[in-house]
Amino acid sequence: MTMSEVNVEPVMVTTAPPYAALKKNDALPTVLTIAGSDSSGGAGIEADLKTITSHRCYGLTCITALTAQTPERVYAVHNTPKSHLKLILQSNLRDMRVDVIKTGMLTDDAVDVLIEVLGAIPKEQRPSLVVDPVLIATSGFSLAEGNSTVLKIKELAPLATLLTPNIYECAQLLGREFACNDVNDLIKAGEELRAITKCPNVLVKGGHAPWIGKNGGKYVTDVLCSEDGHTIYQSEFCAVDNTHGTGCTLASAISSNLAHKESLGHAIYGAIQYVHNAIQIGCQVTLKHVKENGPINHVYAIKMPLKEMIEDVCYSAHNLSLEEDDRASNCSSSSVISQIRDSGSFFQYLISDSRVKPYWEAYINHDFVRQVADGTLPREKFRFFLEQDYAYLDNYAQIHCTAASKAPTDADFRKSIEVVSSIKVEMEKHREKMIKHFGISDMKHFDEIKKSPALKNYARFFLDVAKSGSWEHLCVALSPCLMGYGNALLIRQNDITVPEDDIYHTWCKDYLSPWYTDAMDEGLILLDRICQMTSDWDALCEIYAAVCKLEKEFWDSALAYHESKSVDNASA
Amino acid sequence: MTMSEVNVEPVMVTTAPPYAALKKNDALPTVLTIAGSDSSGGAGIEADLKTITSHRCYGLTCITALTAQTPERVYAVHNTPKSHLKLILQSNLRDMRVDVIKTGMLTDDAVDVLIEVLGAIPKEQRPSLVVDPVLIATSGFSLAEGNSTVLKIKELAPLATLLTPNIYECAQLLGREFACNDVNDLIKAGEELRAITKCPNVLVKGGHAPWIGKNGGKYVTDVLCSEDGHTIYQSEFCAVDNTHGTGCTLASAISSNLAHKESLGHAIYGAIQYVHNAIQIGCQVTLKHVKENGPINHVYAIKMPLKEMIEDVCYSAHNLSLEEDDRASNCSSSSVISQIRDSGSFFQYLISDSRVKPYWEAYINHDFVRQVADGTLPREKFRFFLEQDYAYLDNYAQIHCTAASKAPTDADFRKSIEVVSSIKVEMEKHREKMIKHFGISDMKHFDEIKKSPALKNYARFFLDVAKSGSWEHLCVALSPCLMGYGNALLIRQNDITVPEDDIYHTWCKDYLSPWYTDAMDEGLILLDRICQMTSDWDALCEIYAAVCKLEKEFWDSALAYHESKSVDNASA
Repeated sequence: MTMSEVNVEPVMVTTAPPYAALKKNDALPTVLTIAGSDSSGGAGIEADLKTITSHRCYGLTCITALTAQTPERVYAVHNTPKSHLKLILQSNLRDMRVDVIKTGMLTDDAVDVLIEVLGAIPKEQRPSLVVDPVLIATSGFSLAEGNSTVLKIKELAPLATLLTPNIYECAQLLGREFACNDVNDLIKAGEELRAITKCPNVLVKGGHAPWIGKNGGKYVTDVLCSEDGHTIYQSEFCAVDNTHGTGCTLASAISSNLAHKESLGHAIYGAIQYVHNAIQIGCQVTLKHVKENGPINHVYAIKMPLKEMIEDVCYSAHNLSLEEDDRASNCSSSSVISQIRDSGSFFQYLISDSRVKPYWEAYINHDFVRQVADGTLPREKFRFFLEQDYAYLDNYAQIHCTAASKAPTDADFRKSIEVVSSIKVEMEKHREKMIKHFGISDMKHFDEIKKSPALKNYARFFLDVAKSGSWEHLCVALSPCLMGYGNALLIRQNDITVPEDDIYHTWCKDYLSPWYTDAMDEGLILLDRICQMTSDWDALCEIYAAVCKLEKEFWDSALAYHESKSVDNASA
Repeated sequence: MTMSEVNVEPVMVTTAPPYAALKKNDALPTVLTIAGSDSSGGAGIEADLKTITSHRCYGLTCITALTAQTPERVYAVHNTPKSHLKLILQSNLRDMRVDVIKTGMLTDDAVDVLIEVLGAIPKEQRPSLVVDPVLIATSGFSLAEGNSTVLKIKELAPLATLLTPNIYECAQLLGREFACNDVNDLIKAGEELRAITKCPNVLVKGGHAPWIGKNGGKYVTDVLCSEDGHTIYQSEFCAVDNTHGTGCTLASAISSNLAHKESLGHAIYGAIQYVHNAIQIGCQVTLKHVKENGPINHVYAIKMPLKEMIEDVCYSAHNLSLEEDDRASNCSSSSVISQIRDSGSFFQYLISDSRVKPYWEAYINHDFVRQVADGTLPREKFRFFLEQDYAYLDNYAQIHCTAASKAPTDADFRKSIEVVSSIKVEMEKHREKMIKHFGISDMKHFDEIKKSPALKNYARFFLDVAKSGSWEHLCVALSPCLMGYGNALLIRQNDITVPEDDIYHTWCKDYLSPWYTDAMDEGLILLDRICQMTSDWDALCEIYAAVCKLEKEFWDSALAYHESKSVDNASA
């Protein structure tokens, strides 16, 4: 037996992050899930716990059955004995604070136990109860024990705060098929269910019946029917293969928001939004032969703890961390590095990348610029463009403040602060231009400009990167605006035929001026520098592509602007 | 059946946050937990899934047994049949990507199945295996099926990447008690276990054997024994009652970090830090009669999704949200509001609060200020104080940039930017002072000042509030510095006996000047305004108290400074 010498410095574990630590002995909202287990993790109590945890709540369980299942199929089901279920439920209610109960896949035994135990609690002390009447799983596999489950759900419903059937489950609970031609049919079904089940609130989920919208896009409606009326929630339809566990997730998310003391309407909004995000973003955790019905991404908003710890002022475990080089030193990295070198600059690499190129080309060849250069752009569209540009400047200032706060060097910090300081000047110049060229006389006009949908999308992206991304990601996101306007005008530089005294002429010339070209040169150098600071080049390409698309859409929206429809254009 | 009219605007669910949405079909790292279920949620697969989710990984399960338990006791255990275990494990490995396997409470059947199934996979394709040899639960309750479990663990160990026994489990696996007098004993035990189990890495957890440090404080060491030596992890001992589930949580956190491709040493650091934070911060989810052994706080770093959604530019569900007034309109709120009114100002309310008062009083009556005022403070201590103050200015600038980015009005924004712009001037003044009064000649000196532990703590708090807190929280955190220095000098204003040409005299007079008093008046108004913007006054008191304590400790550290021990004082 060798005895190593204690000659190494211990790795110091710090105290908890001080701001988080102010919430000592946090009385976390609690949610108890009574459902089956899905061993592959996509649905059942697994999805419930993932959802509850992601909602900053404390989860408890009462597992009704163990299913051996994956997205491929349900291999076997092992029910939990009734006596054990009762012990679990009673012990949880006896020793733990239970704010909300959520049910999923229930066996007949589980329903009997729940009705018995809940019924023994005085009504005003009972936890809220969200019942997801699981009769058909998203995979189409019937987990229910036959029609008796429908009857069992109906026994449970009067004790529930909310029922969340999809349209198939609606039909089974109503005992008949029902027409599903528009949202009124969903409302009718929900109202009827409220009446026959005596559950005060019913959320009819329309995910299996997408509608076609005015612009041809598909959308989905979920309808909440309550005592005082109904609420329609509308989302874009996500055409993806992986939707396993959405029902469990939605009901758990609603339960979590209720446990946080949100109103029912707002709790449901937050849950639908969460599920939508988890579906849209998605994850890839199944093996190749599994083609569909994979799980959704419960953790899309969660940050890896170790990444946060590394940024803590008191972190001191640097020597334990793998060098980024070590982690990145694999075939694909070396190949990317050669490609970057061959491109000549990181900027060239970015705009040549197959994800970026189509958006970059569409952006810098945009007809908006041509129309300004040859003077054919209708005046009201340019005015709209300038107003939207102006309306963005407060967000622009916020974003550069965040960039400054994350700046790695003093020089980077000063540069961002210079931009911030110059924004106020920029705003004055904008106002002068608009007063002079568009005859605006009321200064209040500038405070009342409504952000168009295109501008909101644009601002939204940058605010999200500023909040959640690194300094490098933010700098890369800020690049296309600088490089794109300059390159777009370079393309048109011999076609600026609008008269010199025209505001259009000045606008074009600004982007061809020496100071602007100098700024672009600095931008090239910054990108090369960032390229060396990180090996996350894929993410940088995705960001560059996304912003080029937003820039293009900003100009699209100016071209599409109509003075008479100004309300529609500018509305949220 | 009533038919409600569709006369309401639908609530629009937006697309996913655009930056998060860049990670489409994220190949999340996956962790499969093979363990028992703890229905009260504190340990077992429940704690595992909470941990895995909090680490931004995808969790799968293979539940070995259903336990009906709470922190009070284990009421019953229902084992999963062997055939079902095998189906679950095989289906997971067949259809899902499994990066790391973590084991907790294992039945003999579970071990047999695991050895059989893992053994059938070629070694290089096997997932990493982290074995937490659960023999004694934190509650002292023996979950193991007797000595056969020890033998079973030993059968499993050669297949494992890492074993994580606590000292009791060490003893059982070694087959004998062992002395535990200092960290060398832990290292010896770990090395011996490596040898007899053939597991290449053993983490001996010292949580049950805290040591007494030089300064009398208790600390804990965990020791990793590997092929190339050992690593000691040192943390402060947390004297709390709630530590249920720490073993499960630690092994799952290590597994999650390994799944993220961290080195073993760094994965363990992150896991120990995570568990430490979860224990230190804690949560309260049990009912009053449960006095101890409650669970830890897995979600301390997680933000409630709906709170984030509300801040999204495209959020439009405002009308569904309860007014803050509605939520706050209860007895305790009205009482606080009266107290604030009776205090005369929110500032007075804050410094009179029982949590704040002792720290505020200790701060403004600090002997550091007396010694500066009467000239008795040794010069090297004042120099050290100025140097630390100077070293803080870059963080101070970052923090005000963040305040600017979150500022609710243009006036608030400008104020923060003014502070940022003036910091560079401030830094020059500091340097001039130090050159003039302390004979510093080398400009490089200023770049080489090491942040003292007191300064690191101070900066750490503000950086954490800036990152994770609201604008209101940050403003309240920035208040004690302004109000405290002013009040401390007001207390001493008739006792400034040091000569007028002395730097000490100037320092004191600055805080009594009209511009400083004006600034404090503005500070009072700001606090009153913030008081009306939020009903989270408890949090504001906690923040005020925490910062007064940090200010006091900053002056403590100046008084404790010794020139000869400059290395110790300034070191990390």
